[in-house]
Amino acid sequence: MEIVQQLQIEPGMSINSLVKGMGHCGFGARRLSQAMNIYEEMLKGDFTKFLTVSGAMVPAGMREIISGLIRGRHVDVLVVTGANLVHDIIESFGCHCLGSAESDDAALREEGKSRIYDVFLRDEDFAAFEELMQRILPDTEKVLSGRELLRTLGSGIDDPRSILRSACDMNVPVFCPALPDSMIGLQAWMHSQTKKLTVDAFADVKEIVDICYACQRSGILIVGGGTPKNFALQSMLLSPRSFDLAIQLTTDTPENGGLSGATLSEAVSWGKISEKARHVTVYGDATITLPLLVAGALQGLEKDGS
Amino acid sequence: MEIVQQLQIEPGMSINSLVKGMGHCGFGARRLSQAMNIYEEMLKGDFTKFLTVSGAMVPAGMREIISGLIRGRHVDVLVVTGANLVHDIIESFGCHCLGSAESDDAALREEGKSRIYDVFLRDEDFAAFEELMQRILPDTEKVLSGRELLRTLGSGIDDPRSILRSACDMNVPVFCPALPDSMIGLQAWMHSQTKKLTVDAFADVKEIVDICYACQRSGILIVGGGTPKNFALQSMLLSPRSFDLAIQLTTDTPENGGLSGATLSEAVSWGKISEKARHVTVYGDATITLPLLVAGALQGLEKDGS
Amino acid sequence: MEIVQQLQIEPGMSINSLVKGMGHCGFGARRLSQAMNIYEEMLKGDFTKFLTVSGAMVPAGMREIISGLIRGRHVDVLVVTGANLVHDIIESFGCHCLGSAESDDAALREEGKSRIYDVFLRDEDFAAFEELMQRILPDTEKVLSGRELLRTLGSGIDDPRSILRSACDMNVPVFCPALPDSMIGLQAWMHSQTKKLTVDAFADVKEIVDICYACQRSGILIVGGGTPKNFALQSMLLSPRSFDLAIQLTTDTPENGGLSGATLSEAVSWGKISEKARHVTVYGDATITLPLLVAGALQGLEKDGS
Amino acid sequence: MEIVQQLQIEPGMSINSLVKGMGHCGFGARRLSQAMNIYEEMLKGDFTKFLTVSGAMVPAGMREIISGLIRGRHVDVLVVTGANLVHDIIESFGCHCLGSAESDDAALREEGKSRIYDVFLRDEDFAAFEELMQRILPDTEKVLSGRELLRTLGSGIDDPRSILRSACDMNVPVFCPALPDSMIGLQAWMHSQTKKLTVDAFADVKEIVDICYACQRSGILIVGGGTPKNFALQSMLLSPRSFDLAIQLTTDTPENGGLSGATLSEAVSWGKISEKARHVTVYGDATITLPLLVAGALQGLEKDGS
Repeated sequence: MEIVQQLQIEPGMSINSLVKGMGHCGFGARRLSQAMNIYEEMLKGDFTKFLTVSGAMVPAGMREIISGLIRGRHVDVLVVTGANLVHDIIESFGCHCLGSAESDDAALREEGKSRIYDVFLRDEDFAAFEELMQRILPDTEKVLSGRELLRTLGSGIDDPRSILRSACDMNVPVFCPALPDSMIGLQAWMHSQTKKLTVDAFADVKEIVDICYACQRSGILIVGGGTPKNFALQSMLLSPRSFDLAIQLTTDTPENGGLSGATLSEAVSWGKISEKARHVTVYGDATITLPLLVAGALQGLEKDGS
Repeated sequence: MEIVQQLQIEPGMSINSLVKGMGHCGFGARRLSQAMNIYEEMLKGDFTKFLTVSGAMVPAGMREIISGLIRGRHVDVLVVTGANLVHDIIESFGCHCLGSAESDDAALREEGKSRIYDVFLRDEDFAAFEELMQRILPDTEKVLSGRELLRTLGSGIDDPRSILRSACDMNVPVFCPALPDSMIGLQAWMHSQTKKLTVDAFADVKEIVDICYACQRSGILIVGGGTPKNFALQSMLLSPRSFDLAIQLTTDTPENGGLSGATLSEAVSWGKISEKARHVTVYGDATITLPLLVAGALQGLEKDGS
Repeated sequence: MEIVQQLQIEPGMSINSLVKGMGHCGFGARRLSQAMNIYEEMLKGDFTKFLTVSGAMVPAGMREIISGLIRGRHVDVLVVTGANLVHDIIESFGCHCLGSAESDDAALREEGKSRIYDVFLRDEDFAAFEELMQRILPDTEKVLSGRELLRTLGSGIDDPRSILRSACDMNVPVFCPALPDSMIGLQAWMHSQTKKLTVDAFADVKEIVDICYACQRSGILIVGGGTPKNFALQSMLLSPRSFDLAIQLTTDTPENGGLSGATLSEAVSWGKISEKARHVTVYGDATITLPLLVAGALQGLEKDGS
Repeated sequence: MEIVQQLQIEPGMSINSLVKGMGHCGFGARRLSQAMNIYEEMLKGDFTKFLTVSGAMVPAGMREIISGLIRGRHVDVLVVTGANLVHDIIESFGCHCLGSAESDDAALREEGKSRIYDVFLRDEDFAAFEELMQRILPDTEKVLSGRELLRTLGSGIDDPRSILRSACDMNVPVFCPALPDSMIGLQAWMHSQTKKLTVDAFADVKEIVDICYACQRSGILIVGGGTPKNFALQSMLLSPRSFDLAIQLTTDTPENGGLSGATLSEAVSWGKISEKARHVTVYGDATITLPLLVAGALQGLEKDGS
């Protein structure tokens, strides 16, 4: 039986070494280390790599980790919430501000600031977002899929660090299963009152199922649950395959029965994840665990000369 | 300054009395009591009543609380996840089974059971679901809104206790902002390969914004966060109004910055909830807090002769 | 296989019926219902009944539920945190106030109010507490156990609704394994500077182990984890027995490896709980789940004519 | 207003740089970065440094981080749970094993293994622990404080990486406010049946209050809440001072009103922490956040040539 090896802190140690050392510890430390090992395997191997992103990751500063992964060819399919895309677009010309979670929300309203926990958005950035959206939303007779719409938006964003632009440049399909549930949805509706714009709600289903059908081995990194998690997992149901590697970073726990906290083992009973798959869930705030996972795995890849 | 009054347990006391008594306590007890008071006010008054439902509430046994509220005219707008609708449809002819959360998921897979925490679904019920769906999904040239599609589905379900059927009977619009992210989405796509079916992804935005525009005073009961929460709240952004009463039942806490755990106060900074609104968040499993809230509030209404 | 029966809300239904109905549901509802069944069995049967209480239950209004259980002969051994005893003593002459969790803590400090989430304590009540303590703390050559000290304190409290007084009146031993970690500890130390007072830190171990040795069948209701949970469970280790029934109400989940969220199954591996025991953990705020559990179980006992 | 700077992952970046970069992000990332800044200030400056440790940190592999901090003169007062001390003693001659959290606990019981989430302890290590304890527990007429007892135990442990031994070597007082609530308590009671051993439950109160009185500026790192948190904080109440710097690593959140999740701001209302103090709570598993905090802060100290 393997024994717990007490974690060593050494001067100048790398993130990769620290997280590797956690693999001989218990609790969350071990899970994070397992996640890094699985992620290294996923990035090195011949896997179709899915990344799903939920939670306000872009407002919280995780945007360039995601676009960096895309540009580094570490993402083949991105499934994301509309809100993260809205904030990605805003970052391409504007900014998010560091605020306080204990603010007076009525006062913020007066000042024209909208709060996301301890991050603020200014009304002027929303106004500029609307203007940009009305400019880059397409005017076309063709019925589009959500993915096609997002690709068009990506090509209209002039910022190489943008998630949408990076995905467009690298030919990575972006799916947003709850597109109407975002400011993109509100803008698309306003746009469609004077222009031609129709998005077929179910067209994306076909596109992602086709990808699932085509892929041999596949891996998934799930950041934060939500509709992106389910949409990616359920797409495997219509294919003869299932995910071979899976990592989940979440703050939800299984006990409440919700999907965001559901174990990856549960997904095995559905056939979404292979019963032979390596999989692990890291419980905790993804603004801490995602940077550790990515920085550690990339250091690991380099060491191996990949 | 009001003082804590130690909670009294009395023989034969009603749910309403117990929860009323919690109003003089601290922590979650006080919040639950405030929620019941706000809900009573909402149900008694002239409010447009929104209900949003996320989390696997139907598999967990909360289906008839929801359809009961609809038939009791306590819901004017329902926003819900696709998964809950799938399970509502399955309950109309099949069932969910009581299982164990500590099951062997690979074995369940073999047995044809899919697990949702401690509830199982049998493959035969999914097969019957598919058959029913292919029968009741419309075949029409008309481009539909999601709400129209769901109304059609509701009219095809032969079960008065069904959420979709109840909403159809009572003329309550049902919105599902992530419709493709569910088995309804998968079925709709399969259906559309041989039949005519197009749902406009953004048509629902117009419909719900129109409702928000039209309503005078409004209240919202949010069960479980997710896209239903955001979709309902953001719809107020395009109207001159905001919610006057708001209750949230959630297992998420604010610290991680995600929307499902965001305070209702945060929504005040966005203008989604009025700064004068009465609002409260009850932290905890909605399979416990929702029945208490509803049973307590309905007992309260009766007492008042409403 | 048993199926999920959708929960019914009926006018005037009792707490016992509601919670009974939850037994055919999933998630937290089912666990709460199982807990009520186990608690009814414990209260009806010939079990030595342990109750452990952690978390600020007395400031939050749960004091008379606890003292009521003691006076109703539903508790044979109480293990509790020092803080709850301090607040029990304060309630015997003073009060706790309903405040807001979003208060300005520096301002509260100025006003002489100490905050426990949304409950306040006034400096004058602490002053009266100190005065009372200096009066009722014993002055004796005898080396006392913690239990003996708490009995002496209980006999000095002139309030039948007090936990300590009720335990004294009903001859229920009270253990507080972290006695120095409370204002009682601070007061005892001050007292001992001018009077004779020595409490043997380990004497309680003998006393509770003797109880564990003597009992035939035993059950435990654990409210909130902490040292009371562990102290009661570990006491079984030195006896040939283990708990036959166990209920835990906690907000902690197992994933972080801490004792407060540890599953009761984990305690089986230690031999603290019998492998044949019926046991269940209810996740959630005990200010909600404890009143439900107790009110429901007492209604159940009455129905049975017990 | 400061803006969110999207976090950069760079090849070979240090832990210190990564966490520094998190300071311009939102949510948990920002809190972790603030914690590292406060900890660097604490370690550099002339502060009396308190460390409190709760949760099964030693079984999970954090033992040498703690003893390393002690030997590096970064701890002046240690307050810790009995369980962590028991496991520290066991590690001095035995080991903890890496197991699975999904084990069959009745089978583990048969095999002589006790489980702490995903870590196992073997019966033979407990047996050796008992033997060692009976050997090193003192036999003395003198009434001891808990601190004195723990110092004696520390001097009897032949392992420089031990927390207790390191504290003994470095003259760091160790307080365990719930000493009876551990295997040390059980062993001490057994020992006292044949030998002379009396520990005065309240003697530690005097010792730690004296330290609080004597210190000028003070800082506290709270790992995991529990009695260690409260005992250290309450000790300031009897002194004219309060903590000037405070960091808390916890998985509990404030909403349930328990002390382990209580905000540090709440402690300001009590006068335990100064209203001018810099303080921050990092929510999450301390087996991840503690190594990051310590490794990052120590790298920061080195860079500064401290």
